[in-house]
Amino acid sequence: MNVYTHPQPEDWAALCARPTATYEDLVPLVRQIFDDVAYDGDRALDHYTQKFDGVELSEIAVQPDAFAAAELRVPKDLKAAIALAKDNITRFHQAQTTKRVQVETQPGVWCWQEKRPIQKVGLYIPGGSAPLFSTILMLAVPAVLAGCEEIVLCSPPNSEGQLPDVVLYTAALCGIKKVYKVGGVQAIAAMTLGTTQIPKVYKLFGPGNQYVTVAKQWATRYQTAIDMPAGPSELLVVADSSVPPAYVAADLLSQAEHGPDSQVILVTTDAACVPPIQQAIDEQLEKLPRKDVAKKAIENSKIIVFESDAAAIDFINQYGPEHYIICSLKEDEYIDNIQNAGSVFIGKYTPESAGDYASGTNHTLPTNGYAKQYSGVNLDSFLKQMTFQKIDAQGMKTIGPAIELMADAEGLQAHKNAVTVRLNDLA
Amino acid sequence: MNVYTHPQPEDWAALCARPTATYEDLVPLVRQIFDDVAYDGDRALDHYTQKFDGVELSEIAVQPDAFAAAELRVPKDLKAAIALAKDNITRFHQAQTTKRVQVETQPGVWCWQEKRPIQKVGLYIPGGSAPLFSTILMLAVPAVLAGCEEIVLCSPPNSEGQLPDVVLYTAALCGIKKVYKVGGVQAIAAMTLGTTQIPKVYKLFGPGNQYVTVAKQWATRYQTAIDMPAGPSELLVVADSSVPPAYVAADLLSQAEHGPDSQVILVTTDAACVPPIQQAIDEQLEKLPRKDVAKKAIENSKIIVFESDAAAIDFINQYGPEHYIICSLKEDEYIDNIQNAGSVFIGKYTPESAGDYASGTNHTLPTNGYAKQYSGVNLDSFLKQMTFQKIDAQGMKTIGPAIELMADAEGLQAHKNAVTVRLNDLA
Repeated sequence: MNVYTHPQPEDWAALCARPTATYEDLVPLVRQIFDDVAYDGDRALDHYTQKFDGVELSEIAVQPDAFAAAELRVPKDLKAAIALAKDNITRFHQAQTTKRVQVETQPGVWCWQEKRPIQKVGLYIPGGSAPLFSTILMLAVPAVLAGCEEIVLCSPPNSEGQLPDVVLYTAALCGIKKVYKVGGVQAIAAMTLGTTQIPKVYKLFGPGNQYVTVAKQWATRYQTAIDMPAGPSELLVVADSSVPPAYVAADLLSQAEHGPDSQVILVTTDAACVPPIQQAIDEQLEKLPRKDVAKKAIENSKIIVFESDAAAIDFINQYGPEHYIICSLKEDEYIDNIQNAGSVFIGKYTPESAGDYASGTNHTLPTNGYAKQYSGVNLDSFLKQMTFQKIDAQGMKTIGPAIELMADAEGLQAHKNAVTVRLNDLA
Repeated sequence: MNVYTHPQPEDWAALCARPTATYEDLVPLVRQIFDDVAYDGDRALDHYTQKFDGVELSEIAVQPDAFAAAELRVPKDLKAAIALAKDNITRFHQAQTTKRVQVETQPGVWCWQEKRPIQKVGLYIPGGSAPLFSTILMLAVPAVLAGCEEIVLCSPPNSEGQLPDVVLYTAALCGIKKVYKVGGVQAIAAMTLGTTQIPKVYKLFGPGNQYVTVAKQWATRYQTAIDMPAGPSELLVVADSSVPPAYVAADLLSQAEHGPDSQVILVTTDAACVPPIQQAIDEQLEKLPRKDVAKKAIENSKIIVFESDAAAIDFINQYGPEHYIICSLKEDEYIDNIQNAGSVFIGKYTPESAGDYASGTNHTLPTNGYAKQYSGVNLDSFLKQMTFQKIDAQGMKTIGPAIELMADAEGLQAHKNAVTVRLNDLA
């Protein structure tokens, strides 16, 4: 890891930089696939599944008996682990339920705000090297709690044309029945446009590689919303010598194994903690099955030593990390002053892995500095807020004249007249 | 207005269609202006202000004494009306404040969710034919309540190179000090990219013409968030003979005067109410200063008679209106079953104008069917949710083994190891 000592604020922007986005490069392919799916529907899906996943499917939709068969093959201890994670995720997301907000702003003027579920949502679960069933929990649990009527799940088939057993098991456990063996850009296009088999949805959720990321952004041209723009996963740890170096090293490596473009940053004001952490990284790295990936990510990663905690906090807020671990004697200072972070992990027994899987928080979080303006996925991500108002004769008399004056000042006479016709009757 | 009687569900999509978007056509100009502002900063702003607004400004930023001078020129009764509106808007948005959500999901596993303000936000206030000071209230009041640190407001100068007095007065009343005389695409580009004079923001809010709408979408390529995609304003009224036809006519016309592309729809199951409403429209239309605009919008508008309330409600949910007025004896049915609407106005004394100006609800709402997945602007629009977690030794022992199993099943050994190094010490 590269060590930077006491960097000046004018150099922070460079230290905050993420890998260059390749949006423009990927657009032509994404556009082509969307156009093909729009034109050819399910036939285009078959074509791209053959091309990219290398399999010919007799059926895109997972059939009911496949769920039952998969369940039998998932080990009992893994089922128990998933059950524990699901319980915690359910508990934390259910607690996010809010009541209707109602205010009588003036006598006879009642305004209220209610949340109603987004009726149709699409969940994208990446495939590739690992079956990411944990992401199903993170998306399906709040979607079901929110009351979404139609929940569609797409995930790419493996080389046998199947989805992993644990993916089917977890989907069924969450009550998701519409599961389709389609991945990549073509899955995003299908859920955006709708095909004969795959329903069109109103909002898309889930992580993915750079193609899926661009496809989700492209989908927004078709009146589909997305959970958030995504980029490679990130972790920033602020640490000092009070925490075992092996813990910090293990946390940094857990992020590094995601991909060579993963962003891993260690921030400290305690230069003495750096060498033992670096040594622990070297030791642990050798034992990792994905050490080639992790090594590349670690090589691009940064250790930054700041002169003061205030400077460190300013930098962290400028960076806006997706995951932010605090292992410091000055824990409260680093918690209270954080403005921009996706999810915060506090203390030496709180690794990022806990939130990735089982503590209850969501692991679908804003990357690439988007923590400055986006929330991670939460219960509200599956709801929209609507306002309501009801005004009686008294209320109209109270606020009507003000509306007339304001509409008149804005030059909108018909707006004024909608009040005047009523006030005339009430005079 | 065109009358459609008992349309079949297969024809509803056509009835729900909005004017075709012209995104692709406007992109080249928007891209050019963004590039120029990126390269030339404030000089590019001066150039485009001369070109599009026809004025040469000595200063882009509104100076402190200009606010004081404007205040003296705003009539007292208009100030009182603005104060009443601001009070109601403040009351309704303040009530939307939520508490921190905290759950101990397992003994020793504490998870919580907090909202923190988006630090830098930009408010765009359109100019053109009317000084839309009401939009300042709708955006600045919740931004200030949320605690946003830096609030930037841009609005195009008039032909004298000034902002209208009431715009400056309202901005100052809301506590907004950073006001810039820049409009259109160049204003959106400036707040997205930052110039020497205008700060870069994290999220952009506010309505605008089609150029501004495309510019906001373009801004999302530069890590800026936007409140929502926008389109021409819309109103759907469901009515029957129980309401005076003049009220329904006035409401439909208040929407129609916005622009020739405004969407106005009357839905009913009571065909008898249609002729009197049409007659009232004709009568009121003649007296409107903006009758040419309203006439065009009305010509393109639709009256749809449904066989049943159930069909009417299904249609309304498929349409997803920005504004939805219910003037019907079956009020409750039309309220309880609405799934997709921006803001709902109930009963004969609740014109849309009330929510546009003074009742307390926000008037920045999703158009073009986006009510299916977007909320209107509300307090949360200026906040982001962050999650936090703290786990102690007992908590780690409880959930650690489940994390190890799940990480292992996903093939992520470093994620597992982050738990294992801790559990080994706790064994």
